[in-house]
Amino acid sequence: MNALPKTIRFRPPSETQRAVVDLLDQTCLPNQVTRLECFDVDTLHDAIVRLVVRGAPAIGVAAAYGVLLAEVQEDASLDERVRAYRIAADRLATSRPTAVNLFWALDAMRSGIDRFLREEAHGNAPDPAKGTALQTRLVEIATQIDREEAGRCQAIGEHGAAYLDRLVATDSVRILTHCNAGALATTGIGTALAPVYCLHQQGRSVEVIADETRPLLQGARLTAWELATAGVSVTVCTDSMAAQVLSQRKIDAVIVGADRIAANGDVANKIGTYGLAVAAKHHGVPFLVAAPISTFDSNIATGDLIPIEQRSEKEIRQPDRSANAWTPREADVMNPAFDVTPAGLIQAIVTQLGVIERPTELSVATHLNSAANRSI
Amino acid sequence: MNALPKTIRFRPPSETQRAVVDLLDQTCLPNQVTRLECFDVDTLHDAIVRLVVRGAPAIGVAAAYGVLLAEVQEDASLDERVRAYRIAADRLATSRPTAVNLFWALDAMRSGIDRFLREEAHGNAPDPAKGTALQTRLVEIATQIDREEAGRCQAIGEHGAAYLDRLVATDSVRILTHCNAGALATTGIGTALAPVYCLHQQGRSVEVIADETRPLLQGARLTAWELATAGVSVTVCTDSMAAQVLSQRKIDAVIVGADRIAANGDVANKIGTYGLAVAAKHHGVPFLVAAPISTFDSNIATGDLIPIEQRSEKEIRQPDRSANAWTPREADVMNPAFDVTPAGLIQAIVTQLGVIERPTELSVATHLNSAANRSI
Repeated sequence: MNALPKTIRFRPPSETQRAVVDLLDQTCLPNQVTRLECFDVDTLHDAIVRLVVRGAPAIGVAAAYGVLLAEVQEDASLDERVRAYRIAADRLATSRPTAVNLFWALDAMRSGIDRFLREEAHGNAPDPAKGTALQTRLVEIATQIDREEAGRCQAIGEHGAAYLDRLVATDSVRILTHCNAGALATTGIGTALAPVYCLHQQGRSVEVIADETRPLLQGARLTAWELATAGVSVTVCTDSMAAQVLSQRKIDAVIVGADRIAANGDVANKIGTYGLAVAAKHHGVPFLVAAPISTFDSNIATGDLIPIEQRSEKEIRQPDRSANAWTPREADVMNPAFDVTPAGLIQAIVTQLGVIERPTELSVATHLNSAANRSI
Repeated sequence: MNALPKTIRFRPPSETQRAVVDLLDQTCLPNQVTRLECFDVDTLHDAIVRLVVRGAPAIGVAAAYGVLLAEVQEDASLDERVRAYRIAADRLATSRPTAVNLFWALDAMRSGIDRFLREEAHGNAPDPAKGTALQTRLVEIATQIDREEAGRCQAIGEHGAAYLDRLVATDSVRILTHCNAGALATTGIGTALAPVYCLHQQGRSVEVIADETRPLLQGARLTAWELATAGVSVTVCTDSMAAQVLSQRKIDAVIVGADRIAANGDVANKIGTYGLAVAAKHHGVPFLVAAPISTFDSNIATGDLIPIEQRSEKEIRQPDRSANAWTPREADVMNPAFDVTPAGLIQAIVTQLGVIERPTELSVATHLNSAANRSI
């Protein structure tokens, strides 16, 4: 497999160089492959706001590294460093409202500071050295978050690939997906696309049909680009073609990611997912969801209680600022960012721990309990 | 109801003025409402090619009038006129390959010439007067095609409205539609939208949800514009939102047009129609097709035999020339213009003669026979 693009690169601060969070600029894909080097917190904050980096796991990792962009002198005191890192974390937490991973990753960084202050700050080392030791500790924590994120993707990929292997008797596998739950949304091989990459690495012939995913075109712009870059065969269709694709091309499974999963297994994901699940059901094609355990929200009993973000009308009316309006001003438009797919339409949810087949409140709870016991 | 836009206006030739086929330029909608005056056959031919006028019924009417744009002197002989009109008809027939109405309308004009030559050309009038009489006859034929087309729309609208009236108990009616099978595609009140306009005229509260209809956006650009212009409440959604709309908003019926209907009632229509029919079925929402009798193709037994036009990749990769590409070059794209909805998913087909409920080979044949007997 060709090397996947690295969504986020981090260079830790050293005596001679400042820290850098180096992002693949996803706003320019697929027209330009450029990277944005963030040397300070404001630049990274703006990059998260502008979706230069997107996808809950990737945002979390970027923000964790971002704490280390706080401006501190090499010989700063421990107090000065602690203050600067905490301000950076607070600032980065304001970049996006919904991605749980963002808050989770920043909390992990804050806890790291607190633990350092409890355990290490009372030693005999000179004060600036303590500050440097804290910096080293935070680099370790952020790097670990990054690595664990990638590890979860790999585990999801392996469980998903094994499941597909049992499902599909033929040599070649044809997958239909929606939106982008791939490498670009994570720091690993993605979630929905992880089983695809695993099968591809195992030498299986894998072909992906990617819905373009109006309005923001994550399928056409991002999924198509990353799969093609990795050497996986990919074909883009409009969202309206998916049902015909299911009826005419031998699709082995539909796989999508998830933004939030309710306690009963209902899945909120990018708008269009629900229609795809209905069409998959009609054609008897297995509908799979791939997502890490952190996506489950046990506090929400059923999908209809998940709040659905309504996004700007502009995305519908005029998708490209350089182009003409598509919809006349006199007409209303709607733009829900997500829809909810009831558990009854889902054949399996794949997590880093394994597969929940035919998700129900009971099977989801059992799976989550096993997760708690294994401290993932 | 506000006046609907006039898709085609015709000014017949007179002693002082040339004929004009005056088209609402649908390529500029909804950003500009401009008209294109065609004074010669080449301009009209180009306008049909460029989709300034589109929709099978509208193309037929435009072409019929277009024959009268043939360049003839006021005092031309009958022979000169016949030659010029026939050349015009032949030229216009090359403008679009698939719209049956185009050939049908031009054949009607050619037959008019032949009949005139058989019946009228041997009188005692001076030759240029015979030429003028032929011109008058052709204006009558084209005007009749136009009026009949509008009449068929009206009849479809009334049958459809009556059917919906029986179907919907509430005062307000909410319809979901796809693509544009409205006034802009015809010279009347449309086909799929005809029942909407009739209900609106009857004072019923009607609301339409229009799929934007990627790739060419006939829903966002045309359906939204014509409904808003007529004063009908309309909301545009992306094609991917339709299933959620069916699940969450009380949709009384889905109504679409048709490009071709097989002998067993299978319907070829704009890509996305099939997925919509599947979603309607899943939600128990009646799925209706509205189309004139001329849309039926008795020579085609079932929908899978209907040839599906594959259109340019550009429509998917880069929908607006002024904007960036959406899909990377390394990815494949597909672009079928139509899909086929099996009769089993269709609750009723509405024609100018009435309603075929639960279409089957037998009920379609019976309906078409009654049409033949009534020489519509």
